[in-house]
Amino acid sequence: MTSVDIRPPLNGVDTPTLFATLDAVAEQPELAKFQFRASNEWISGTHNRSTIQGFYGAGQEDSTRVAPFVYDADHPVVLVGGGNAPAPVEFLLHGIAACLTAGVANIAAARGIALTKVQSTVEGDIDLLGILGLSDQVRNGYESIRVHFTVEGDASPEELRGLVEQSRARSAVYDVLTNGVPVSVDVTAA
Amino acid sequence: MTSVDIRPPLNGVDTPTLFATLDAVAEQPELAKFQFRASNEWISGTHNRSTIQGFYGAGQEDSTRVAPFVYDADHPVVLVGGGNAPAPVEFLLHGIAACLTAGVANIAAARGIALTKVQSTVEGDIDLLGILGLSDQVRNGYESIRVHFTVEGDASPEELRGLVEQSRARSAVYDVLTNGVPVSVDVTAA
Repeated sequence: MTSVDIRPPLNGVDTPTLFATLDAVAEQPELAKFQFRASNEWISGTHNRSTIQGFYGAGQEDSTRVAPFVYDADHPVVLVGGGNAPAPVEFLLHGIAACLTAGVANIAAARGIALTKVQSTVEGDIDLLGILGLSDQVRNGYESIRVHFTVEGDASPEELRGLVEQSRARSAVYDVLTNGVPVSVDVTAA
Repeated sequence: MTSVDIRPPLNGVDTPTLFATLDAVAEQPELAKFQFRASNEWISGTHNRSTIQGFYGAGQEDSTRVAPFVYDADHPVVLVGGGNAPAPVEFLLHGIAACLTAGVANIAAARGIALTKVQSTVEGDIDLLGILGLSDQVRNGYESIRVHFTVEGDASPEELRGLVEQSRARSAVYDVLTNGVPVSVDVTAA
């Protein structure tokens, strides 16, 4: 047992359980294997809807999510979509902000830093000449993404910046967005 | 004017306006420069909330979104989160399914193929030994993502598979997830 093991709950993080979970996974590394899933149904035009509920992790299928989470996506009106929901690329911006923020809260709790505010803005620049097929010199995706955090709490500015830096260093979404991941796509057609 | 210019609306896609938009962007490439944005606010623990509304594109700030889109994220209970919403990484799966599906509908309309069903499932495998800091040999993000589509419509199986293939080839989210993008993170701390 190290000194961090006795940190009390902080920032809404159940720190003792978090450290106990880390210990359990360290002893049984197969508990760390997770599979997340989504299913999507086309509605009309560029409007479609994803359902997120089940996942595998910690050695079993999850049973805690009793209802599905449902999210629409659509292209904006200016791109001849229905504008019923954000564009698919906008959900990547939610993903990176949410992942880094969750990490900041966990790491602050582990370090005994009480947070009072964690706010962030994300911007993603994209030149649609790529996806519109109008230029082979322009990539399809974002050219760059910028995240700006404002963090307040009972620690020095340097310590607060260190929370974001450690969160970035251990962020699943940051890793995927910056380094990429193999994506396979297959089709059943009828 | 080419033969595709006279395609009527199909699959809920306003095909004439889509082609007119392509023509307009081809003449004024600066219209293709877009910036999407999200802002996020920490709630408690790993629970946080993003707001998505404004964006820049087609030479101006958007004014068509009169209300914000709001999405929560949280870590699941088994990872000591509150389970109030999907995990941040799960929104990446929504993003890839939604992007490919929107593309399939647009491309089918442009090719004169009437769709009756576009359904997809996405799986993402992730070993949390990385983000938990328990192994330096394991990456933080997904190891792999698999997308499976079921497409039905008034075309041959080969033509229907071709819709997904062309959508993949022009997908912004597929490009970002497979090739990565520079992400900068900065902090104001107080």
